[in-house]
Amino acid sequence: MTHPRAAVHELVAPVAEGLQRVNDILRAQLSEDSAAVRDMTDHVGRFQGKQLRAALVLLSGEATGNSTDEHAAVAAIVEMIHLATLVHDDILDGALVRRRVACINQRWDNQVAVLLGDFLYARAFALSTELSSRLCSRVLAETTRRLCVGEIEQSARRYDFELEQAAYEAVSGAKTASLYSAGCELGARYPGGNEELGRDLAAFGWNLGLAFQIVDDCLDVVGSQDVVGKTLGQDVEDGKVTLPVLFTYGRADEALRAEIRDVFTRPGLERRAERLRAACDLGPGVEYAMARARALIDEAKARIAGLSESRAKQAMGAIAEFVLTRNW
Amino acid sequence: MTHPRAAVHELVAPVAEGLQRVNDILRAQLSEDSAAVRDMTDHVGRFQGKQLRAALVLLSGEATGNSTDEHAAVAAIVEMIHLATLVHDDILDGALVRRRVACINQRWDNQVAVLLGDFLYARAFALSTELSSRLCSRVLAETTRRLCVGEIEQSARRYDFELEQAAYEAVSGAKTASLYSAGCELGARYPGGNEELGRDLAAFGWNLGLAFQIVDDCLDVVGSQDVVGKTLGQDVEDGKVTLPVLFTYGRADEALRAEIRDVFTRPGLERRAERLRAACDLGPGVEYAMARARALIDEAKARIAGLSESRAKQAMGAIAEFVLTRNW
Repeated sequence: MTHPRAAVHELVAPVAEGLQRVNDILRAQLSEDSAAVRDMTDHVGRFQGKQLRAALVLLSGEATGNSTDEHAAVAAIVEMIHLATLVHDDILDGALVRRRVACINQRWDNQVAVLLGDFLYARAFALSTELSSRLCSRVLAETTRRLCVGEIEQSARRYDFELEQAAYEAVSGAKTASLYSAGCELGARYPGGNEELGRDLAAFGWNLGLAFQIVDDCLDVVGSQDVVGKTLGQDVEDGKVTLPVLFTYGRADEALRAEIRDVFTRPGLERRAERLRAACDLGPGVEYAMARARALIDEAKARIAGLSESRAKQAMGAIAEFVLTRNW
Repeated sequence: MTHPRAAVHELVAPVAEGLQRVNDILRAQLSEDSAAVRDMTDHVGRFQGKQLRAALVLLSGEATGNSTDEHAAVAAIVEMIHLATLVHDDILDGALVRRRVACINQRWDNQVAVLLGDFLYARAFALSTELSSRLCSRVLAETTRRLCVGEIEQSARRYDFELEQAAYEAVSGAKTASLYSAGCELGARYPGGNEELGRDLAAFGWNLGLAFQIVDDCLDVVGSQDVVGKTLGQDVEDGKVTLPVLFTYGRADEALRAEIRDVFTRPGLERRAERLRAACDLGPGVEYAMARARALIDEAKARIAGLSESRAKQAMGAIAEFVLTRNW
């Protein structure tokens, strides 16, 4: 079996050179005269991860014949916004381990995590205002707003076991898919024009991003922490009722429903996710959610089917498939 | 004695109509389809306060003969960025009361405060990308970066009793004066050109903002909570060593220095600010700091002395003086 990181590396090979430039830009953007800031941003470098979002900006540009000199900067900005949400998410989720690196808010404190996230957002917007076209600033400011609204909605819907699947998808989409969507749209459209292609690529990104989030939600309840490399069971701790749980709850009798609610809500309970797995068979719920993710990936691929064949298009299809098999 | 809020109201009379438009824009910007978001933004409306920053954008435009239809939007954006920093500051400071309204992070929780601040930043940037000129986005993205760096630096310099006054001013300036400076610069320059006037007005805003912060720091150690209307003594709780304390510490003998450090750092101590006032005479330190604020206000007024006389210029001078006498 190939190591997942190696697999991703192969998938993004068509834009390897561009990703190098993205990382050069990130390094330059995160360097500051302030030693206190450098201490923090050094640490953020270690969050970097798969950079799938940046790769998809570049691949969307290549696959639509729309690559410019500024695409690497656009990709770096998307990546910085993603990093900002990760840093602020660590405050939100109280997650203990992310990508096997101590979280910012564990090594420092909540205050510093808030500021570092703000700094990353500010850097991202500042860089976007230096580009020749305003399209990047416009799309990403609006996307950041949607992202925040999604997170706020998610927070408001905690412990809501009656959540409709459509509402779950709207919230997960705003929270996760919107940045994938914006990145792919910008890849196809930046610096402007190309609106129809932009819509197709935005839809590719949206469907892929939503599938990504659904797989993430499945991993959170049934994944193996050793393989995935971040604290799991966090959604149950935080009261986030995700698709596999919604499905399970919807099919349960009243006694089991009461038990599931109890596992989520009884004060002081420990290892809630483990207890949830013991209380009910999550298998059918995970199967249902994964089938939904499969359908979303098919829809994503359909939206780029019309593009002429290229290594970039092929890579996008492979990344879409990879989202379904990932276990990182 | 006039009530401070009434006094501010009179000071900004020359731009009262513009401020009305600013508030219409703010209301529209903060309205969202999401009920969860509306719950929060309704609450933010009550943070509104003096809107000095917005008023200074408009006054700087009037005083330099540079008012445009978009000045109200620029002022609203500056105000939203300020609101975002206030909301995130409440996480930072753990302040219990601000402007006599329960803090966001008391009524909801830290997670929601992070998200609401992010939402306000995103809204501000999104609105700035809709303006005809990019100058507002550029100046404010860079200002937000400086603001974050200032906050991070301040956090790193906690419990640093050897802090030089210049370093204290650099940090306080980045944290507070930079947004005043950017607002006044944009008032004089937006949508572009006018660079020399922009520099003068930026300097006016910087000096006024730094004086504002110094007065704030004095109020925090010796103000009356009933009059000021927000939790005081918070800087001492948070380990922020401000100018009146730095001065006092610098003149103290080794025994008193040890006592001051102890008041700041001994674990579990309550009512630290009160104990600090009991341990030493802060009077000369406050006097020194207020003299510095006086000098900064004189410098601010000197930077606009060359402008032709107008109600707006007069109001700016009066606001500058008001900063020194404020006790809100």
